[in-house]
Amino acid sequence: MIALGIDIGGSGVKAGVVSPDGRIWGHTVVHLAEGQAKQTQPILDAAVRAGREAQEKAAGEGKQACAIGIGVPGVVDAKNGVVVASANLEGLRGVALARHVGDALKLEARLANDANAAALGEVLYGGHGELDSLVLFTLGTGIGGGIVINGKIVTGHNGYAGELGHMRIEMSSPRPCGCGRWGCLEAYAGNLSIVKRAHEALADDWKKTSCLHKPAEDPKFSAEQVFGAAKLGDPLATRLVEETALALAVGAVNMVHALNPQRVLFAGGMTAAGSEFLDLILSFARDLPIEGVSVDGRIGFASLGDKAGVVGAAAVGSLL
Amino acid sequence: MIALGIDIGGSGVKAGVVSPDGRIWGHTVVHLAEGQAKQTQPILDAAVRAGREAQEKAAGEGKQACAIGIGVPGVVDAKNGVVVASANLEGLRGVALARHVGDALKLEARLANDANAAALGEVLYGGHGELDSLVLFTLGTGIGGGIVINGKIVTGHNGYAGELGHMRIEMSSPRPCGCGRWGCLEAYAGNLSIVKRAHEALADDWKKTSCLHKPAEDPKFSAEQVFGAAKLGDPLATRLVEETALALAVGAVNMVHALNPQRVLFAGGMTAAGSEFLDLILSFARDLPIEGVSVDGRIGFASLGDKAGVVGAAAVGSLL
Repeated sequence: MIALGIDIGGSGVKAGVVSPDGRIWGHTVVHLAEGQAKQTQPILDAAVRAGREAQEKAAGEGKQACAIGIGVPGVVDAKNGVVVASANLEGLRGVALARHVGDALKLEARLANDANAAALGEVLYGGHGELDSLVLFTLGTGIGGGIVINGKIVTGHNGYAGELGHMRIEMSSPRPCGCGRWGCLEAYAGNLSIVKRAHEALADDWKKTSCLHKPAEDPKFSAEQVFGAAKLGDPLATRLVEETALALAVGAVNMVHALNPQRVLFAGGMTAAGSEFLDLILSFARDLPIEGVSVDGRIGFASLGDKAGVVGAAAVGSLL
Repeated sequence: MIALGIDIGGSGVKAGVVSPDGRIWGHTVVHLAEGQAKQTQPILDAAVRAGREAQEKAAGEGKQACAIGIGVPGVVDAKNGVVVASANLEGLRGVALARHVGDALKLEARLANDANAAALGEVLYGGHGELDSLVLFTLGTGIGGGIVINGKIVTGHNGYAGELGHMRIEMSSPRPCGCGRWGCLEAYAGNLSIVKRAHEALADDWKKTSCLHKPAEDPKFSAEQVFGAAKLGDPLATRLVEETALALAVGAVNMVHALNPQRVLFAGGMTAAGSEFLDLILSFARDLPIEGVSVDGRIGFASLGDKAGVVGAAAVGSLL
């Protein structure tokens, strides 16, 4: 089914009509001005405008959506199409988003958490073959995720399933996590934690073995730079990347043991580190499962990249 | 639907007809002789005999099953009713168990892993109200589990979903696990690990603060005795029980974050430690979730106890 995907984020709305081959038609971006993410009406207006423009552009290319999917960061009540809570889009709290957008665009609309939607998008349009089940880790500043079982998103009893970044993987000397707790996967493998760990390691590196001392003084110093330095053989950066890969391997294999999904995929900026990084994760992951359980061919990188938001949202709509 | 539950274990087969109120009728036990668990025919014979006797006894009380559910420890191909692998019942490897038993008893039969079946049993007959989703941890020598989402067992792509004991919760100084890996939940909260940890702690307790030195010399020294000593205020035993409760809390909350199930329940001998032990788990668990996530009313003990095997198996059959 051809569906309109509307991906709402803190800085704006992206929309596009997605055909069954996973291509986006009439891709449209509507930005939110400073402060608008805290108000309801500007977000609703931007969502409807982005959706309408995408539909009009796609119609010009002969593509017509017959359902709408909407992705938002935060907790959603999928059954009723209501946003329960969203840290980055406070204006949407309690809003019947699916009904509002659906009424305005005269199509049925369905709502999902954006990482959950991305997982469904990978299943339907990711080119991974027929998948019955998938666990997706979304790697960014923090770590989120989405779980699909038997072709359906696992939303959970209250709508927040897929909080994979707050799986605790360390008890005896846990790092603090952005969530205020300790030992979470995110505290080892989120971009923000990689930067923090780099600063700590550099403070200990009085022999100045690393080339990252100067770059790390820049307030914009990023996890990407740590990965770049590791590629060039920097020993401190290499150790940080290895620790990150081990943490991700533990997170992935924990979900393999719990759910035995057909695939476990990582998405987000960190996957730009490429096949070398995936091989590193796999080299750790191979040592972790119980007998009879294989990670090869199971753990990999997501394929939708920047398209995941719109395509994932459309995937939610396409199952209407 | 009234179903016949057949619970096959390494030492024998239990069977009974389970009515919709969760009561067992015609409960029957057929023991396996030494070595029979490694042969196919004796297990099949015992399963059919136990099932037939249970049916006959139940029929005498006016209860007639119209489907069969079978639970086995190990990995099963639920769709085809075939046992893939079973460490304790080697004779069942590759056997089309559901078809064999179903043909012999002239009813349709369905197969499930026993811990998975127990989870479905708790959902249908555990008296927890209407449950849409449940994660069950089965605490024994090792730790297993079962996951039910939208009223269905999550079997996984290869049939081994629910291996919750091998969720890794420690990276920096992990304990060895019986599975040959490190840092698994089972290495902190399985009965065997509690005994091992007690021996280690006692070896360090040169001041002899604990009353467990003498009992621990007995080769039959058990986790139960550690729990008993903790109840009497033994400081070493208390610390071991607290560590166990923390590990279980971490395991439970990890699954709450991943799947947001309506309930997370613990089953098995350790629950005999009672509400004090549950309160201890909850006191740790309350500090672990991210904002907005509550564990009260969510984490608890299973209610089926010794009935879980037969009732769980029947639950699998009742959904045929």
